[in-house]
Amino acid sequence: MKRVTIEDIAAKLNISFSTVARALNDHPAISEATKNAVKETATRLGYRQNKVAASLRSGRTHIIGVIVPNLQLSFFSAVVHGIERIMNENDYNILLYQSNEALVQEARGIDTFLQSRVDGIIASVTQETREMPHYAEIRKRGIPLLFFDRAIANLEVPSVVIDDFKGGYLATQHLVDQGYRRIVHINTEQNLAIFSAREEGYKAALIANGLAVDASLIVRGPLSLALGEATVDRFVAQQIPFDAIFAVEDFTAMGALQALKKHKIKVPSAVGVIGFANEAFGSLVTPTLSSVDQQTVRMGEESAKLFLKLLQQKGKVMPPEKIVLEPMLVPRASSGNF
Amino acid sequence: MKRVTIEDIAAKLNISFSTVARALNDHPAISEATKNAVKETATRLGYRQNKVAASLRSGRTHIIGVIVPNLQLSFFSAVVHGIERIMNENDYNILLYQSNEALVQEARGIDTFLQSRVDGIIASVTQETREMPHYAEIRKRGIPLLFFDRAIANLEVPSVVIDDFKGGYLATQHLVDQGYRRIVHINTEQNLAIFSAREEGYKAALIANGLAVDASLIVRGPLSLALGEATVDRFVAQQIPFDAIFAVEDFTAMGALQALKKHKIKVPSAVGVIGFANEAFGSLVTPTLSSVDQQTVRMGEESAKLFLKLLQQKGKVMPPEKIVLEPMLVPRASSGNF
Repeated sequence: MKRVTIEDIAAKLNISFSTVARALNDHPAISEATKNAVKETATRLGYRQNKVAASLRSGRTHIIGVIVPNLQLSFFSAVVHGIERIMNENDYNILLYQSNEALVQEARGIDTFLQSRVDGIIASVTQETREMPHYAEIRKRGIPLLFFDRAIANLEVPSVVIDDFKGGYLATQHLVDQGYRRIVHINTEQNLAIFSAREEGYKAALIANGLAVDASLIVRGPLSLALGEATVDRFVAQQIPFDAIFAVEDFTAMGALQALKKHKIKVPSAVGVIGFANEAFGSLVTPTLSSVDQQTVRMGEESAKLFLKLLQQKGKVMPPEKIVLEPMLVPRASSGNF
Repeated sequence: MKRVTIEDIAAKLNISFSTVARALNDHPAISEATKNAVKETATRLGYRQNKVAASLRSGRTHIIGVIVPNLQLSFFSAVVHGIERIMNENDYNILLYQSNEALVQEARGIDTFLQSRVDGIIASVTQETREMPHYAEIRKRGIPLLFFDRAIANLEVPSVVIDDFKGGYLATQHLVDQGYRRIVHINTEQNLAIFSAREEGYKAALIANGLAVDASLIVRGPLSLALGEATVDRFVAQQIPFDAIFAVEDFTAMGALQALKKHKIKVPSAVGVIGFANEAFGSLVTPTLSSVDQQTVRMGEESAKLFLKLLQQKGKVMPPEKIVLEPMLVPRASSGNF
């Protein structure tokens, strides 16, 4: 198959090479009618721009690298969909790198993106990330950087996050409204800001409702189905009374739900359960799992839009913008009859 | 932060610059002891290779591009995990591009990877992909290419797949073994080889068990929860008798399961259900969903291993190797008491 060239398009339309080339690059001197005719003909003939040459000319690749901790969480794949939609519409392509929650992988991902000469990086950091010489390197090179969901506080980088404190508060207030009083909270032992903010929200909601914060009801461990299950097993074995569980993410909540079933403890009549993140499986299980939605696709879209602004500002120093989205309570059967 | 150089490592160990440089590149003339000392010191000092310069020297980037149709299916994210594990161990980095099942996105992904000068591409094609000038382009440039799960038959490209015919056969034979006789089959209207092979397996198993293939029990549509639900709704409304459902993928099976519940039809005693792909939610729902496992992580690992062979063969013409993995029946509560 012979490659279609600018000359082929020019010959077809009987116009000059430079008119075609400028039309393809949206040059202001070319009329809309001509641009449309050139683009239609280009599409019809199967013309494909030599992007390597184009990027060498412009110094831009129109590639944005996105670093995600774990694509097996539907949260991250949904955010990525939002980012892709907006960036593709704006003629950028998205490449993904999965850090698998490991700092060393995250650093490799950044290296790989720099090597691919991406125009910018959008990232959500790993659970291990505390210091970030590798992120500082990106900024030193003047490459636009934006964090979503998991940001790093002491680095002045624009970010799109949700109000995790409010999310924790909403979840807990909901359980209180449903009549639950001894609310177990399951969280991680790792010091990630989004997770501690949810815990602060839990505590604030208890206090606002005149309930005591009972340290024996706060459990920490590696977030997982197994942690949720082990927590319920231990509370049942030690006969510690509780009537609700708020887990900091859905898989842990799901493990608790399964263990309650195993112990023949009725959900939601005896114990209510709520998770966080509104993972895709929550609406499929029985009882359906209450959760807190993080507006994932919108988070992706807002990230992309803010990032497009950054790309335009390139070079100028601006105070970093921070967009905070509202968490949304998703009450389902595990915390009442919805 | 000053960048650590080869000179710094050489000074620290009191050896020559060229010894350090060759040790870092695994040169055979350098002893294992020296290599280990150099690598340890490099890690300790925070030395990072200038990969752009290194790749310009070698003509290699050590980046492999992976094209996946949809990361919201746990099937694909699990395969990606397998690919990453093996490729990272071998000092390759994986970049992902999501085609979202659209041919035009798939072509953009390939363009983006070529522009990033990847050393090779591993792909699973979209449901729309019939012809593939964009894949042919990769081969013309001599860039190694491998398909996983969804391959294209008429292109002579190495691939790692499962035996989809056998998977369809196993699922159907299992339902027959459980005593079901009027087995509805839900499939796509799109002509993708993996899905038609599963249907052939369904038909072959019926015939082998002396059961008729009844065209009125075979339903086609866009695979989704909604399709599974609509199928059950229609069969119930039209009072068409059936006692089992084999859906070609799990989300459609899940939709059927939910509709059966809605109509108060008992699963598995009145109707048995089995899906395909062993998506992560299947073990979380009630009743748990029977399925056919595709050995996802192993598929990823085998893909990576075969790909490493291709990278070594570069230039040589070899008959394309095809690895066919065995599907594995995962019987759960939706088709019996497991």
